Amino acid sequence: MKKNKRFPFVFYGGDYNPDQWDEDTIDRDMELFHKAGVNLVTLPVFSWAKLEPEEGVYCFEWLDKILEKLLANHINVFLSTPTSAQPAWLSKKYSEVLPVDIAGRKRTHGMRVFFCVNSKKYRERAAAIAEEMAKRYQNYPGLLGWHVANEYGTYCYCDTCQRKYRNWLKERYQTVENLNNKWNTSFWGRTVYDFDEIYIPSELNDDYRFFPAAELDYMRFMTDSTKDCFLNEAEILRKYTPDIPVFSNISGYIKKLNQFAMTDVMDVAAWDNYPSPKDDPSFPALKHDLMRAMKGGQSYIIAEQSPNQQNWQPYNKLKRPGQIRTLAYQGIGHGADTCLFFQMRQSIGGQEKFHGAMISHADREDTRIFCEMSRLGKELRQLEDWSLDAKIKSDVGIIFDWENWWALELSSGPTKDMDYLEQVHKYYKAFYDNNISVDMLKLTSDFSNYKVIVAPLLYMIKEGVAEKLEIFVKNGGRLITTYMSGLVDENDRCVFGAYPGKLRKMLGIWVEETDALYPEESNQIVLSADKTKKRFRCGFLCDQIHLENAEALAVYGQDFYEGTPCITLNEFGDGKAYYIGTCPEALFLNKMMKSICNECGIGASFETKDRVEICVKEGNDCKLIFIINHEDKKAAVNLGNEDYFDVFSRNKIKGEVVLNPYDVMILGSKL
Amino acid sequence: MKKNKRFPFVFYGGDYNPDQWDEDTIDRDMELFHKAGVNLVTLPVFSWAKLEPEEGVYCFEWLDKILEKLLANHINVFLSTPTSAQPAWLSKKYSEVLPVDIAGRKRTHGMRVFFCVNSKKYRERAAAIAEEMAKRYQNYPGLLGWHVANEYGTYCYCDTCQRKYRNWLKERYQTVENLNNKWNTSFWGRTVYDFDEIYIPSELNDDYRFFPAAELDYMRFMTDSTKDCFLNEAEILRKYTPDIPVFSNISGYIKKLNQFAMTDVMDVAAWDNYPSPKDDPSFPALKHDLMRAMKGGQSYIIAEQSPNQQNWQPYNKLKRPGQIRTLAYQGIGHGADTCLFFQMRQSIGGQEKFHGAMISHADREDTRIFCEMSRLGKELRQLEDWSLDAKIKSDVGIIFDWENWWALELSSGPTKDMDYLEQVHKYYKAFYDNNISVDMLKLTSDFSNYKVIVAPLLYMIKEGVAEKLEIFVKNGGRLITTYMSGLVDENDRCVFGAYPGKLRKMLGIWVEETDALYPEESNQIVLSADKTKKRFRCGFLCDQIHLENAEALAVYGQDFYEGTPCITLNEFGDGKAYYIGTCPEALFLNKMMKSICNECGIGASFETKDRVEICVKEGNDCKLIFIINHEDKKAAVNLGNEDYFDVFSRNKIKGEVVLNPYDVMILGSKL
Amino acid sequence: MKKNKRFPFVFYGGDYNPDQWDEDTIDRDMELFHKAGVNLVTLPVFSWAKLEPEEGVYCFEWLDKILEKLLANHINVFLSTPTSAQPAWLSKKYSEVLPVDIAGRKRTHGMRVFFCVNSKKYRERAAAIAEEMAKRYQNYPGLLGWHVANEYGTYCYCDTCQRKYRNWLKERYQTVENLNNKWNTSFWGRTVYDFDEIYIPSELNDDYRFFPAAELDYMRFMTDSTKDCFLNEAEILRKYTPDIPVFSNISGYIKKLNQFAMTDVMDVAAWDNYPSPKDDPSFPALKHDLMRAMKGGQSYIIAEQSPNQQNWQPYNKLKRPGQIRTLAYQGIGHGADTCLFFQMRQSIGGQEKFHGAMISHADREDTRIFCEMSRLGKELRQLEDWSLDAKIKSDVGIIFDWENWWALELSSGPTKDMDYLEQVHKYYKAFYDNNISVDMLKLTSDFSNYKVIVAPLLYMIKEGVAEKLEIFVKNGGRLITTYMSGLVDENDRCVFGAYPGKLRKMLGIWVEETDALYPEESNQIVLSADKTKKRFRCGFLCDQIHLENAEALAVYGQDFYEGTPCITLNEFGDGKAYYIGTCPEALFLNKMMKSICNECGIGASFETKDRVEICVKEGNDCKLIFIINHEDKKAAVNLGNEDYFDVFSRNKIKGEVVLNPYDVMILGSKL
Repeated sequence: MKKNKRFPFVFYGGDYNPDQWDEDTIDRDMELFHKAGVNLVTLPVFSWAKLEPEEGVYCFEWLDKILEKLLANHINVFLSTPTSAQPAWLSKKYSEVLPVDIAGRKRTHGMRVFFCVNSKKYRERAAAIAEEMAKRYQNYPGLLGWHVANEYGTYCYCDTCQRKYRNWLKERYQTVENLNNKWNTSFWGRTVYDFDEIYIPSELNDDYRFFPAAELDYMRFMTDSTKDCFLNEAEILRKYTPDIPVFSNISGYIKKLNQFAMTDVMDVAAWDNYPSPKDDPSFPALKHDLMRAMKGGQSYIIAEQSPNQQNWQPYNKLKRPGQIRTLAYQGIGHGADTCLFFQMRQSIGGQEKFHGAMISHADREDTRIFCEMSRLGKELRQLEDWSLDAKIKSDVGIIFDWENWWALELSSGPTKDMDYLEQVHKYYKAFYDNNISVDMLKLTSDFSNYKVIVAPLLYMIKEGVAEKLEIFVKNGGRLITTYMSGLVDENDRCVFGAYPGKLRKMLGIWVEETDALYPEESNQIVLSADKTKKRFRCGFLCDQIHLENAEALAVYGQDFYEGTPCITLNEFGDGKAYYIGTCPEALFLNKMMKSICNECGIGASFETKDRVEICVKEGNDCKLIFIINHEDKKAAVNLGNEDYFDVFSRNKIKGEVVLNPYDVMILGSKL
Repeated sequence: MKKNKRFPFVFYGGDYNPDQWDEDTIDRDMELFHKAGVNLVTLPVFSWAKLEPEEGVYCFEWLDKILEKLLANHINVFLSTPTSAQPAWLSKKYSEVLPVDIAGRKRTHGMRVFFCVNSKKYRERAAAIAEEMAKRYQNYPGLLGWHVANEYGTYCYCDTCQRKYRNWLKERYQTVENLNNKWNTSFWGRTVYDFDEIYIPSELNDDYRFFPAAELDYMRFMTDSTKDCFLNEAEILRKYTPDIPVFSNISGYIKKLNQFAMTDVMDVAAWDNYPSPKDDPSFPALKHDLMRAMKGGQSYIIAEQSPNQQNWQPYNKLKRPGQIRTLAYQGIGHGADTCLFFQMRQSIGGQEKFHGAMISHADREDTRIFCEMSRLGKELRQLEDWSLDAKIKSDVGIIFDWENWWALELSSGPTKDMDYLEQVHKYYKAFYDNNISVDMLKLTSDFSNYKVIVAPLLYMIKEGVAEKLEIFVKNGGRLITTYMSGLVDENDRCVFGAYPGKLRKMLGIWVEETDALYPEESNQIVLSADKTKKRFRCGFLCDQIHLENAEALAVYGQDFYEGTPCITLNEFGDGKAYYIGTCPEALFLNKMMKSICNECGIGASFETKDRVEICVKEGNDCKLIFIINHEDKKAAVNLGNEDYFDVFSRNKIKGEVVLNPYDVMILGSKL
Repeated sequence: MKKNKRFPFVFYGGDYNPDQWDEDTIDRDMELFHKAGVNLVTLPVFSWAKLEPEEGVYCFEWLDKILEKLLANHINVFLSTPTSAQPAWLSKKYSEVLPVDIAGRKRTHGMRVFFCVNSKKYRERAAAIAEEMAKRYQNYPGLLGWHVANEYGTYCYCDTCQRKYRNWLKERYQTVENLNNKWNTSFWGRTVYDFDEIYIPSELNDDYRFFPAAELDYMRFMTDSTKDCFLNEAEILRKYTPDIPVFSNISGYIKKLNQFAMTDVMDVAAWDNYPSPKDDPSFPALKHDLMRAMKGGQSYIIAEQSPNQQNWQPYNKLKRPGQIRTLAYQGIGHGADTCLFFQMRQSIGGQEKFHGAMISHADREDTRIFCEMSRLGKELRQLEDWSLDAKIKSDVGIIFDWENWWALELSSGPTKDMDYLEQVHKYYKAFYDNNISVDMLKLTSDFSNYKVIVAPLLYMIKEGVAEKLEIFVKNGGRLITTYMSGLVDENDRCVFGAYPGKLRKMLGIWVEETDALYPEESNQIVLSADKTKKRFRCGFLCDQIHLENAEALAVYGQDFYEGTPCITLNEFGDGKAYYIGTCPEALFLNKMMKSICNECGIGASFETKDRVEICVKEGNDCKLIFIINHEDKKAAVNLGNEDYFDVFSRNKIKGEVVLNPYDVMILGSKL
């Protein structure tokens, strides 16, 4: 988000639902917000029914009062359009608003984000209330952002969607002949003669990944439809307040919509960060970096995180003492410039009544959570705008692509355990554990800023991508790609000719076959250059590789392909192209990535143990180094002989420092 | 059931389906019934289609003949209305009779208990056939009870139910404003302006416990609807035969309907006892005690149990030799005054063709099962009415509440493993293993009869309940309650202010947070008073407790809350209130409950090993002690120096006795 | 299939989809086919939409061209009617064509084999295109067979099927009284008064095997409907080309249709052989023998097998080097006279784009798979017609019956783990591991050709079967039958009187009860005659057996039935009838079957280790012995002192030979 001149602090606060409370409680909130250092709240996310009790009749007075109180208490707002949960009267009066599910069932009114994004009537009424709000609050002094709806992502299979899907296809393919060709419909006799003969793949006609090309296009279509649904409101808001950023928040479950495409039409990226208690800290780190990629490295909004346990995890573990702060700084360290929470005050009823909040049902200020939140609030205010200008600079990029994700997982074979995010995470973690900063890259990113690029499972090679990668390598870059790369075009049609298709020349190999291993099976990676013949475990998939120009860095240790290459290197132009033909154990990847980075002069600021994370942000004249201890134990870090400035204590510091469990240290150093 | 003057024996027999057989077989049945000592059968449970082949045309002659034969053979009957399986013509002619399922699918004719309980036409035709039977058989001399329908419990989501649900809500809440408030609809924007805007929660609008308040009320509504459906027939039967008890049998799967509410409108409670081969014997014991609670300690009917294996368990193990009798006396020992079985003769076709029966397909009287049944029949006749007058007297009560059950399990968080029955069973078993008799209590029961009351997971505190418990403790009672208590009101709204809400004063604590543990995780209970610091395992949930007036009996052994209280005691008035903040291992609960009982002078008749159960019934002048060996091994019990009368052998007995595997001994002693 | 005079070779080739390719690629195919020795392809399986772009408008020219090319290249064809995937316009214009699924959902157009087999319009259009093809290609010189549709087996629950099901029932039972009796509808009150009151069992009315008799008849009805659907085309084809065999290919998932009934109306049996990588080789062996049973021992067609991994297994392991050939000869050794593959060329898009093919996406002739296929093609041509005339002669038969399968698994109880195919396989494997050839037998097969017959789990005893088995034993045969035998009639009604009903006299026992064991439980078989009292493990089910005339060969080792018989032998006439009352471990069955065979003079050609298979085929003057090494290791086999002719090397051979991993040896010996 663009740095806000009027307000040089990290935004601190979060979702606030005063429509659930009486005036006394709201006054109490103001008092507690003040104590906790809250400076921004998001509202009124779910209040459509309260704001528009019947069609076209608006009732904003209660909200006016609350906004006055917030203003009086110097608390800014992200105003949300309340359109993620339409009022019951709307669903009842215009049933077209309700979605049809993948099983063909018309839904009835009830849930949130439970409307057809293509419904004309939904869009009409959503636009109307958005306009009403924009008109009323365009000059509200505390308004810092527009938060549109909430966590888009409901797929619909209704007749409207069916019709629009066909039109979308018509626009994309122009003729049925072209579509037949691109979808390879001659397989299993699916040739069509009219766009009206095409049905959205659903449980009614597709039991087991029957028609990946059609599903892929449906997911593209749903992204486009949801984008339009967002723009339906955003364009109105922008008309009234051209300087106020407009965004929607991305749900933690990010797969359903192409979020790169979604955020293209937003002014800033925003997401909800809910790691599971069992997630390795590198997993939210990856997602943070993905969010930073949305707007090309600009800072992003953490719209929600939990001040304590959630209620909807299978087992809702308490956040450990200090852990709220650990996660907050992880976000800031990766590029967020807000620290917002769901939620300010815990609801007394409904699905999330046991979800953590800054103010719990106990309504006390001496709770562990309130105390931790207050401490963090104060600390962030002390930080002022130090972190806001700073940027992350990475020499390593990892390519991520939504359409690649979808196509890879829609594909039947070679293994049922295909999980793109999990696979990308393996490569991400190899750098993370080495404290080497990574940028997640779009296919459209500028590759020339990077020394090393990893393209894990780059299954789908779209127009121009292979050429772009070749240029990167020719110019001296290191490219690492893997099994399941170079297989299909943007319509999930396999390359004709040997794999990895368009990547073949650069990689200097061809891949004949891919063996799928059962989870209990494994093979070994045997390093060619290593006299000790140290072996590393591998599994999942094992490519059968033929060398063309490449050399084998490692070979398989067993099975009928024992001794054949599994990891190869091709010198190409001034650079190097690596191919990893099987899924190695973490230790191996960790070593391999470190070694490639070393060769390119990429190193970590400090070495740390697992679960002690380093983030580095660079401002105009100053470098901030975040040391984050995700472990429930003390952690020692050797800072070396250089002098650093300890941002929290404001002291000079060097040599070995010890962090408490879940503690964070920020070091400043001049650039 | 009221003791039947004309018939001073335990009712012995069960479900009989002569409509499946020819006359020769029926004559053979009479002969075998006589040999086995059968004195009562239930019929004609599923004969609606045979009795009313077309609308309003009745065909009772075949039943008349059978009833004559039964009378001639001195076999009494529970006459059942055949309304649990409507005839196909009824479903076909009036499709409103068929239910709609939770997925919104109109069902087609086929299954049993497969009608909408709110269908006007179903009720009309059910009333008509009930009246026809009542008129015809009101003076039948063998009639000892009316068994209405069978195992109610089908939920329906049709338009009729939708409409009636709204009316039911209107009656309960009067205004939408009140409903909005009680249901906390402002959460996630569910405010309604008309009762017609409310939908029954179903798969069409509620994917994951989305709206607990609405689901809770739906379950209440379904109980009320089913009660009305029962009364629709019962009131007619009572008109014709005011002295004959009317009841329906509760299925073993008891959760769906509030069985306390159901049996309120019955003259006697009746249930079907089908323990799984893997159930600990304390589990059916708990259910028996729950059945005894239905009518406030009055004896109840075991309407069904299996004379051998069932067919619908995953693995249908044979009942071990003697085990039919073990289970029969367990029922009688807990307060049943019937011993009825499903079924007298095994059906040759249909879903249950492999379900055990007194007379198997082999049609022989030398089978193991027939011999065991005959022995039991004779033995029960010898017992005469000894057990019928006797009552169970317990000093310990365990509170059980259906609405609490529903709300607790509808709730999302803190753990997905919430199972009220399993949790209550843990506390029940602590007494069971100590051979201490327990009464299951309704919230409306008279608490003053008890010295110790346990209220496990008393999540929902209804109006007046906290006050009632306070009086109990003030007057000297011991109350034990646990994690997940005192959290919500009857609409599943959390208390505002610290947990456990209204129980806080009495317990002298407040609970700040509740940690959920993964199944593989645990913590320890460290006894404060115990110098040896013996530790017991605990897990599931760990409350963070603050002492107010209470003292800590034990503290946690690890994690960030190591050393903070996990079990507390508050002296309150003349009594003591215990709070158990985490789920302890069985050994700990066993010791803790024993110690509390000892302090109150509650002890067991005898000590026995696990799986050797003691039940005590007291008559006017005599105490009956049942010693029941549920183990497949011999078991020694020391009776001490007192003289007892061995009811079966009619000898005097004292000192150590040894029971054979699955054997039962009943001791008499004067009071 | 009848030996084709014009073409004295094994048919080698498979599914070919030239409609997916351009002319250059097709020319390349011809070249590669020639190199690989392909002599037959099947086409155009999925080309209906291409052949009939609108109703009644045909477009065969593209196919004509391809057929010309094939002819020019001396490649024969199985012409397939393209009716397994109707064109979209057909589904759109006549929605009756689309099926309704078991959940009552009308499907939309999309999948293959996705039509209602009872749809009048489907049959009309299918007949039309079949006739068009027959007319056009009746004189095509390369035509060697008609392959109708593909892998029938879609169940439908639409109104048409409902109506036809009722008519089918009416025809079968004539009166509702008779149906009520045969279906035992009095159980659970299902008596009907009109055939229109009967509904196909589905998820809408049958949640848990509620009505086995009705489901059983539905499966019979679906078989009859599918048979008619096949004949709808086959009769037309036969009219035009009376000498060309007509068939459809049976899917590997064979349960849904009674394949004995299906192949009755075909000229030759054909199936698709897709073993899972984890299958023991005896499992496809059993299925091969089942296929040979279809037409009473005549050779059959392998229509599909995979030249490499599939894509739709959970984990798609590569076929190991040589394994294509291993599996090919296993088929031929069991009686196949074709060796056809899915597929010739790998599709670039669609569900199966990663399914193995002779020509992979790489389009190279130096791939491992293409080389192996070429070697096999040449080898088969060298074999000429040696294997085509030869027949398998077995002294052992195992009875297999589809209706028995269905009824057994529809039944609720005694165990949920009932799996007929898995159980039959246990008995099959006992012979397989002894290298003793087995014929799978229909109930209508001539039993007099066999010395030993096994009837595993012969649950359903149809009219005449018991008598037929009695004659077999009386005449000196050895019959082995097991638990779950003799229980029900053809309507799943249990025998009245002791089990095993009509088999009781012959077996000389009666069975009182059957205990079901949990998977983790077991019992022991203790041999009566064995002084060492060696024990074998048993489990699953344990019958309680009473001896009448039989003697106990073994007794149980524990539980309350310790010492009672578990395996019995009854001498009956000149033969012996064995009953196995519990499921023994494999080692025991292996020994028991070997011992019975030895007694009858049945022995193996050679002894081999596990996973080295022996198949023997006898021609007019020559015996062919296939030695097939399914193991990834070398295997030694001792041929003894007799001289054999090694068919591949054309050398004489005797004594010990060693086979390479996955290698095959064929020995010839004069008869």
